[in-house]
Amino acid sequence: MQTWNAERLALSLLGVAMLACFLPCPAHADEGMWTFDNFPSAAVKAKYGVDIDPAWLDHVRGAAVRLSTGCSASIVAANGIVLSNHHCVRACAQQHSNATRDYVKDGFLATRREDEILCAGMVAEVLASISDVTDRVTAAVAGKTGDEFIKARDAQIAAVEKEGCAGKEDKYSCEVVTMYQGGQYKLYNYRKYTDVRLVFAPEGDTAFFGGDPDNYNFPRYDLDCSFVRLYENGKPAATPDHLRWSTLPPKEGEPLFVAGNPGTTQRLLTADQLSTLRDLNIPEILILYSELRGQLLRFSAESSEHARIGNRDLFSVENSFKANRGKERALVDTTLIAAKRVAERELKARVSKAPKLAAEVGNPWSDIAKAQLHEKELYFRYYDLESRAAYRSDLFEYARDLVRAAQERTKPNGERLREFTDSRLALLAKTLLDPQPVYPELEQLKLAFWLTKLRENLTADSPDTRLFLGKESPETLAARLATSKLGDAAVRKALWEGGLQAVQASDDPLIRFVLATDADSRAVRKLYEDEVSGPVEQAQQKIAHARFALYGTSVYPDATFTLRLSYGKVEGWDNNGVAVPAFTYLSGLWERATGQFPFALTPRWQNAHGKVDPHTVFNFVSDNDIVPGNSGSPAIDAEGQVVGAIFDLNIPSLGGPFGFDDRVNRAVSVSTASITEALRNVYGAQGLVTELTAGD
Amino acid sequence: MQTWNAERLALSLLGVAMLACFLPCPAHADEGMWTFDNFPSAAVKAKYGVDIDPAWLDHVRGAAVRLSTGCSASIVAANGIVLSNHHCVRACAQQHSNATRDYVKDGFLATRREDEILCAGMVAEVLASISDVTDRVTAAVAGKTGDEFIKARDAQIAAVEKEGCAGKEDKYSCEVVTMYQGGQYKLYNYRKYTDVRLVFAPEGDTAFFGGDPDNYNFPRYDLDCSFVRLYENGKPAATPDHLRWSTLPPKEGEPLFVAGNPGTTQRLLTADQLSTLRDLNIPEILILYSELRGQLLRFSAESSEHARIGNRDLFSVENSFKANRGKERALVDTTLIAAKRVAERELKARVSKAPKLAAEVGNPWSDIAKAQLHEKELYFRYYDLESRAAYRSDLFEYARDLVRAAQERTKPNGERLREFTDSRLALLAKTLLDPQPVYPELEQLKLAFWLTKLRENLTADSPDTRLFLGKESPETLAARLATSKLGDAAVRKALWEGGLQAVQASDDPLIRFVLATDADSRAVRKLYEDEVSGPVEQAQQKIAHARFALYGTSVYPDATFTLRLSYGKVEGWDNNGVAVPAFTYLSGLWERATGQFPFALTPRWQNAHGKVDPHTVFNFVSDNDIVPGNSGSPAIDAEGQVVGAIFDLNIPSLGGPFGFDDRVNRAVSVSTASITEALRNVYGAQGLVTELTAGD
Repeated sequence: MQTWNAERLALSLLGVAMLACFLPCPAHADEGMWTFDNFPSAAVKAKYGVDIDPAWLDHVRGAAVRLSTGCSASIVAANGIVLSNHHCVRACAQQHSNATRDYVKDGFLATRREDEILCAGMVAEVLASISDVTDRVTAAVAGKTGDEFIKARDAQIAAVEKEGCAGKEDKYSCEVVTMYQGGQYKLYNYRKYTDVRLVFAPEGDTAFFGGDPDNYNFPRYDLDCSFVRLYENGKPAATPDHLRWSTLPPKEGEPLFVAGNPGTTQRLLTADQLSTLRDLNIPEILILYSELRGQLLRFSAESSEHARIGNRDLFSVENSFKANRGKERALVDTTLIAAKRVAERELKARVSKAPKLAAEVGNPWSDIAKAQLHEKELYFRYYDLESRAAYRSDLFEYARDLVRAAQERTKPNGERLREFTDSRLALLAKTLLDPQPVYPELEQLKLAFWLTKLRENLTADSPDTRLFLGKESPETLAARLATSKLGDAAVRKALWEGGLQAVQASDDPLIRFVLATDADSRAVRKLYEDEVSGPVEQAQQKIAHARFALYGTSVYPDATFTLRLSYGKVEGWDNNGVAVPAFTYLSGLWERATGQFPFALTPRWQNAHGKVDPHTVFNFVSDNDIVPGNSGSPAIDAEGQVVGAIFDLNIPSLGGPFGFDDRVNRAVSVSTASITEALRNVYGAQGLVTELTAGD
Repeated sequence: MQTWNAERLALSLLGVAMLACFLPCPAHADEGMWTFDNFPSAAVKAKYGVDIDPAWLDHVRGAAVRLSTGCSASIVAANGIVLSNHHCVRACAQQHSNATRDYVKDGFLATRREDEILCAGMVAEVLASISDVTDRVTAAVAGKTGDEFIKARDAQIAAVEKEGCAGKEDKYSCEVVTMYQGGQYKLYNYRKYTDVRLVFAPEGDTAFFGGDPDNYNFPRYDLDCSFVRLYENGKPAATPDHLRWSTLPPKEGEPLFVAGNPGTTQRLLTADQLSTLRDLNIPEILILYSELRGQLLRFSAESSEHARIGNRDLFSVENSFKANRGKERALVDTTLIAAKRVAERELKARVSKAPKLAAEVGNPWSDIAKAQLHEKELYFRYYDLESRAAYRSDLFEYARDLVRAAQERTKPNGERLREFTDSRLALLAKTLLDPQPVYPELEQLKLAFWLTKLRENLTADSPDTRLFLGKESPETLAARLATSKLGDAAVRKALWEGGLQAVQASDDPLIRFVLATDADSRAVRKLYEDEVSGPVEQAQQKIAHARFALYGTSVYPDATFTLRLSYGKVEGWDNNGVAVPAFTYLSGLWERATGQFPFALTPRWQNAHGKVDPHTVFNFVSDNDIVPGNSGSPAIDAEGQVVGAIFDLNIPSLGGPFGFDDRVNRAVSVSTASITEALRNVYGAQGLVTELTAGD
């Protein structure tokens, strides 16, 4: 499955179970991604006989980790040891690899603390407190519409965030989270760790055994785990209140809790919004990813070095493609949007029976329907020039962030583009300034791909195309831009610190390119906010208001890549008449191996046959309600012990962003039992095992 | 635009103008692709004051040419000279190119007859007569359903075709054409030419100036023309009744006729069929083409030789992709399928008022709706194993044709798969046995692509995947299969002539692969015919029966890659408020050139500035109703003179397969005026000009 960042690039929207109950009906069965301040403990007690009391919740919250790379994780030992997925640290392993040393291919183990390696750009956050700031934000936007609405809201959010962390910015981060589509605004206060180091990662082919063909499938045989360590002041962080490590797997039917950061769900979208996704956004994403996938596959086949440097993008693109294809399949199913229309009619009928509410709410559904037409008109301009510009090019991201940061930092906090407000600058600076390898050949491929699509989508004769390309072809322009020196962290640091003057004086080709084109990108962004996202967000807020008035908080908010708790049980499912068992065992790995990629065992595992207990539970499924962003989340038993790490979801769950069906939606975990077995008997990581089991 | 073969591989279905009148209403405005035995001369007389009498029709029919490569053409001089498009002979130019001599890039001109080069696999056909065989075919299928219906129909068609050409197979070909979805069956008898030689082709970048970005757009500046010569007994064919060559362009508003072979339209599909196209077939095609496009683009960027050998597939894939994207856009427009549902309700209402007809017809719409569910179930198995197997691999096509032909030729004519009946064997043999270059690296890319998609679509665990891949990966299996020796025409000849025994004894890896897997492919084909195409075709025949009973032949049949005549006028259009003029001029070519591909002039044209008359009409548009397959069709004036060659259609026309709107649908031609000017003053082809203008 995918990290939330990958997903967010893709589209921030997702998908369904055909018979799921669409909101506004209350969450049924094991559905729901609950906030820690509104967890349905009574329902869990009634169904599973388990007491989830405030102490349990506080303990789990304090051990749950959000990674800035778009993943979840958990603290599982006393000295800052954090469990996550391999695919959450793949970029970190790659940062430290080169043509002769490949930690993605061969895995990584630091047997001594001084061998642990810094993950560039990675920040880990632990949620410290939640407070309600709804009144402040809604007061600030009263009477505003369109782009003005968005500006006023973002200015207020920036102010609240700045105040929330004032004086302690080095150790804390503050984020205002929009819940229920603007029905609630909450200030999330995080304890942050900016020094995160890699301790262990298995070989990529062991973590992702079965590769793209097995991705989102089950049965699975993947050791998709990793360990990083949090550091403070150059020393391992003290984390006494960690989750307790279980060396035993959960049992079939056992209740299971997942604490993590589901990225984005769209369960509250209107039928018209879902239709736009079905007819425009997702088909275009699938087309885009498919061509890029083709280019990256061929690029990777050209040499072993190309395979190494192309690996991260290829993995990410294939993963996102498969997820979006699942969403597309869910949306073209005729029952989904039809069910949504029925639910909408019911909500409208209830609103119309409450005259005061009806007057307050108006007809936001109609506003959203109108905005869909503007979405269609602006689609390619907005995505190609702004939202998805230079898709996946690190160099371009550096250039645009440097140019915009230099421009925005000259403005008052409340008037900046939202990603450059004070509360966000620290993470941005880390992302920009941490040294990371950049591969010019790959950058050139991605830049040329983007510029070609821009010309194709907007036509050769559009003023935008003429501005971005001039008389150059996409290929020659990309080759020129890829000579940028922004891959050098020192160059970036000089521009970051030099501010607007340094940026404007730069002769770097990408900086000059962004300086020449960015006004156009900003203009289409403003237009989009004025005609699409502004009206939509305001209309959604009205619908949310109606829902609150009628249903209160008996429903959970859509996912926002913030901490949630889902409950469920360990259970297989019925796949069109075929029973899929809940567990796989280590023995199955050797049975499935063919000797050829992606079903080949690494040398270490070829040699491990007979050294590990074949009856160890390897992977397992549960009916917890999760989506991308939950990658790396701890799977926790009723006693609060960690028994696994979520790393995937099954095919029926790909519609999960739009709804949930606990009969077939399943979360996939790698067991702590198999991780222990592997660390001990395959990787010789006895030191790490000792840390993990120190409490036993 | 694309040849019909490319299109057919894509999908045999296409697209619309939003406000077009959907059948069963009679054709309006300049809509229609009329057969030569049912041309609406009275309507043309009334609208344009032009008499299209039987002599005019016979003359044009006798000069109109169908090329087996999926294009149209016309005889334009006395000694077998035929005008078509560059993109219709691109494969021929490539056949004779190699690493040091590239006729696609540099163009080709035979100044002496002995320099004219054979186009491998190409057959040219001129329609000699049409006769009605509806009664024979419908009698043969009476009482049959599903796969049995298809078998009985195909057996009868095979018999009719064999009888039709008995004793003159060397010079004639016979084809039963299914009109009005089985409402009529017509025997088309063709005079055929199997020795077709290339005389002239401009440089690829001149023929396709603007490349993919300008494809399907207008204004255009493309010399997309070519000349081949028909030979008989080793000598130029005598073709005294050719179209007369005009050195002048048509005038704005002038009536214009297009005689050609539109490939496939789907204007009679039901709303349920269109929904399946929108939700399944076309999105999957777009995904498939996009990834293949990405691989081919990167392959082509690897070296100039890869660019040369990858060119044909890349051109074809990009072309098909763009056409299908236009279709998708037309289908997701909410008005199209809704209008179709209205038209269906009207037809059903009229049927229900005619009790006898209602009893005969039953409810074919419901049968078609049911078959759509089977289409969805069988989709990937049918397309990946059979209909689109080894997509675009020449070697695989050779292998499967050789294996199946060997098996089928042992059966009576009426019991064979339809593509191996006696009437089709001659063309098949020519396609198989003419020498053509095969590029193993490119074959390996395409085979690996196919096998990867097969595994992805059917899953790694399906019995099909296990049969096709065994324990090999797609990449290693493709590498092994690409070592096949079937690229050698002599090897193919030996297997063709050796029949089943030789095929079974072959140790060629692709022959062995097809022998091992083909039973599975044939089984899914039978299943598909039983559950999808059989029921659908039978239901369509019932709907056609109802339409005939109610509307007669006042409507034209869907396109079937057989000769049709469309009428219209030279006219620009209004593109969302911007007037697009009908003509471009040679001067515009230099204005549009940027110096960079695909807007770069070839050296010959760089030097031609000042040597050609800049005021010469270059390309022009008319509102003739055309679709892919019409490429190369003569654009003819009221006097029967050829004034241009159709080579493209505009973006709004991409929905043309589903309907037609003469306000915005336009056909794009290259003028004979500009061809003459270029032959004379750029290419120094005075001999060819003399032949073309000999009648002046």
